[in-house]
Amino acid sequence: PRHIDWSAHMAEKGGYKHFMLKEIFEQPRAVRDTIAGRLREEQGDVYLEDLSLDDAALRGINRICIIACGTSWHAALVGKFLIEEHCRVPVEVDIASEFRYRNPVVDEKTLVMLISQSGETADTLAAMRESKRRGGKCVAICNVVDSSIAREADGVIYTHAGPEIGVASTKAFVTQLIALYLFTIRLGRSREVMSLEQGRDLIAAVVRVPALMEEALKLNEQVEKVARNYLQARDFLYLGRGMNYPIALEGALKLKEISYIHAEGYAAGEMKHGPIALIDEHMPVVVLVPKGPNYDKVFSNMEEVIARGGRVIAVCSEGDQEVKDKVEVALEIPEDGCDVNPLILSIPMQLLAYHVAVLKGTDVDQPRNLAKSVTVE
Amino acid sequence: PRHIDWSAHMAEKGGYKHFMLKEIFEQPRAVRDTIAGRLREEQGDVYLEDLSLDDAALRGINRICIIACGTSWHAALVGKFLIEEHCRVPVEVDIASEFRYRNPVVDEKTLVMLISQSGETADTLAAMRESKRRGGKCVAICNVVDSSIAREADGVIYTHAGPEIGVASTKAFVTQLIALYLFTIRLGRSREVMSLEQGRDLIAAVVRVPALMEEALKLNEQVEKVARNYLQARDFLYLGRGMNYPIALEGALKLKEISYIHAEGYAAGEMKHGPIALIDEHMPVVVLVPKGPNYDKVFSNMEEVIARGGRVIAVCSEGDQEVKDKVEVALEIPEDGCDVNPLILSIPMQLLAYHVAVLKGTDVDQPRNLAKSVTVE
Repeated sequence: PRHIDWSAHMAEKGGYKHFMLKEIFEQPRAVRDTIAGRLREEQGDVYLEDLSLDDAALRGINRICIIACGTSWHAALVGKFLIEEHCRVPVEVDIASEFRYRNPVVDEKTLVMLISQSGETADTLAAMRESKRRGGKCVAICNVVDSSIAREADGVIYTHAGPEIGVASTKAFVTQLIALYLFTIRLGRSREVMSLEQGRDLIAAVVRVPALMEEALKLNEQVEKVARNYLQARDFLYLGRGMNYPIALEGALKLKEISYIHAEGYAAGEMKHGPIALIDEHMPVVVLVPKGPNYDKVFSNMEEVIARGGRVIAVCSEGDQEVKDKVEVALEIPEDGCDVNPLILSIPMQLLAYHVAVLKGTDVDQPRNLAKSVTVE
Repeated sequence: PRHIDWSAHMAEKGGYKHFMLKEIFEQPRAVRDTIAGRLREEQGDVYLEDLSLDDAALRGINRICIIACGTSWHAALVGKFLIEEHCRVPVEVDIASEFRYRNPVVDEKTLVMLISQSGETADTLAAMRESKRRGGKCVAICNVVDSSIAREADGVIYTHAGPEIGVASTKAFVTQLIALYLFTIRLGRSREVMSLEQGRDLIAAVVRVPALMEEALKLNEQVEKVARNYLQARDFLYLGRGMNYPIALEGALKLKEISYIHAEGYAAGEMKHGPIALIDEHMPVVVLVPKGPNYDKVFSNMEEVIARGGRVIAVCSEGDQEVKDKVEVALEIPEDGCDVNPLILSIPMQLLAYHVAVLKGTDVDQPRNLAKSVTVE
C-alpha cells in the first residue's frame, strides 16, 4: 500500500472544536465540488471523466457487485437501491472481508464497484484484485487521488470531499452517495432505461442537495440539546426502511464509533422478528420517518415502539405534526420530494453522534481502537 | 392468512423445563426427518418431491433471490454461501419487508426462494406475490404443510422439524439449513457444475449432521455454567466469517430475543471498521472460530478483541489448544471437515441464549413483545 499524502497538518480546524464538526459543516461544499463540472442538465445525463466505460460497455453489464467496508458499505446499500430502482440491473452488495474469502460469482459481464475513502482499504483492494482475476470490470469510488484502489481499477469516480481527518467518516460518506447518484444517472441513460425527463429530474434533485444540507445543519443547536437528555443511555436502536435503512445503519455506526454506546441499526420491518424484545423505557429509538414511499409503514413501526415504552427520536419532514404529536423528540428535515432523503437524513445522524460523544468526553476525532484508513486485513 | 393447526396442546414438554430446550434437543431427529427419503447417495443427488422444477428449469435460472425475515433470513445467508460456492449461480438475499417495497429486479429467469417456518409470514408472502407478478419462479422452504406460502409457491421444500412451540426458532432453523444443503446438491447436479464425487461428499457430510449434533448437545452442562458468569453483561458481540457469519447473527438474535440483552452479530472482518470501539473489559465477545478456510483470519480477529480487553467465549473445534490457551471460555464442537459447521455451531449458540435467559428469569418460550408467527406487516 502506498503512503497517503494528506495528514492532519494539511488541514486546520478553522474555528471548530473538532475536525468532525468542521467536516460535517463542510458537506454542502463537498457535495458541490463532487457535482461540479459533471452535469449535462440539458441531456439529463452526467459526465464522469475517469469512468472509462462507454455506453456500449455499460450496456454489456448484466450484474453489479458493490464491495466496501464500514461506512462505505452503507453507501453501497443506498447505491443498490438507486441502481435497481432506476436502471433495473441486479445489484449485490457485499462486505469486502467476506467477499474476498468466498468463491464469488464474477465474470466479464459483472461490474464490480469498490468504495473506499482512502483507496487503501486492504480488504477492498484484495476484493478488487480477486474480481479482476475473474474477469470483472472494476470501478472505484475513492476520495484520495491516485490511491492504490483508484490506480488499479479500470475506472474511477472521484469524490471531491477534500481531506477527511476525523476517523468517523462524514463528508466522505455523503460524497460517496453523490457519486452513486451520478453513476446511476449515467448508467440509466446509457442503457436507455432512464428517460430524458427522469434524468433531468434526478439531476435537479442532486443539485438541490447542498442547499437542503445547509437547511438541515441548522438542527445543530437542537441536536445538542437533545443529546444532553440521552447521555445516560447505554443502548440505542436506529430504524429506517428502503433507501433510508442504510442511513439507520450509518447513524448507529457513527454513535458506536465515537461515543462507545452500543447502537444498532435495523430495517424497521424486521423489528417484530426479534429486536422489539429489547424495547423498554430505557431504550432510545431513532426512527427515520420522512415523507416518502414507506412513510405509513415506518409510522406504524414507530407506533409499535411507542406502545412498548421506547423513547422515540423521530427524524421527520418539516412540519409533520402527526409525527411530532407522538414522540419525545422530532428533528425536522427540509422536505423536497424524497429522492435525496438519504443525504439529508445523514446530517442529524452525524450531529447526534457528535454531540453525544462530545458531552460524554470521548476523543471524537480519534476514537479508541479505530484507525482512519484500515490498511491491514 | 389461514389458521395454523398446530398448537401448544399438540406438543408436550416431555420432561424438559421449556419447549425451547426440548426443541433444541430434538434437532438431530428433526434433521434426520428432513433428510429421510430424499437422498440418492449412489447418484450423488437428492430428490425433492415437491420442488416442481426439473433439470431443464433449474438450468434455465440465471439468478436466485432468497427472501426471508428474522431467523429465516440468517438461514438464507448461509444458503447464498452454499449455492454460490457449489453451483456458481449469483444469489441475492433480501429482507422480506425491504424487498417487497423496493422495485426488485425479478424476471422469468429469476428463482425466488422464500423461507418461512410458519408459511404465513405476511411480508414474505407479499414478497412472493410480487415476485410472481414479475414472472419469477417461486420455491418455498416451509415447516407448516399447506400453509399460505407453501400453497401459493410453484414448488416447496418442506422441513420436517415438527411443530415448533418456542417463539425463538431452533429446530426450524437448522432444518431450513438442511433444506438449503439439499437444494444446493440438486441445483449443482442438475446444472452439471457439481461432480458425482462432490455430490456424494456433500451428502455424506449432511448424513453425519445428526450424530455431530448429538455430540454438540453434550455441551449443555458446560454452557449452563458459562451462562452463570455472564448474567450481568448488558451487551454481547458475536463474530464469525464466511458461512459461519450468519450463525454469529443468529446467535446474537437468539440472545436478544429471549434474554433481552443487546447482542449484535458482526462479520469478524468488519470489527475494525467500527464496533471494535465498543470493546472493553465489560464486553463479552462470542467468536466462532472452528477449523476451516477462514480459521487464521478469525483467530487474528479474536486476538484483536483480547488485546483490547474483551472477554472472549470461543466456539472452536475439539482439542484446539491454541484457541483454548487464549480465551476465558472455549466451547468445543466436534470436528468434521467444515462443510456443515453452521449446523453444529448453532447448538452452542442456542444453548447459551437459553441458559442466560433461564438464569435471568425471563419467559423463555414466550418472550415479551414477540409472536411465533408474524402474520401482520
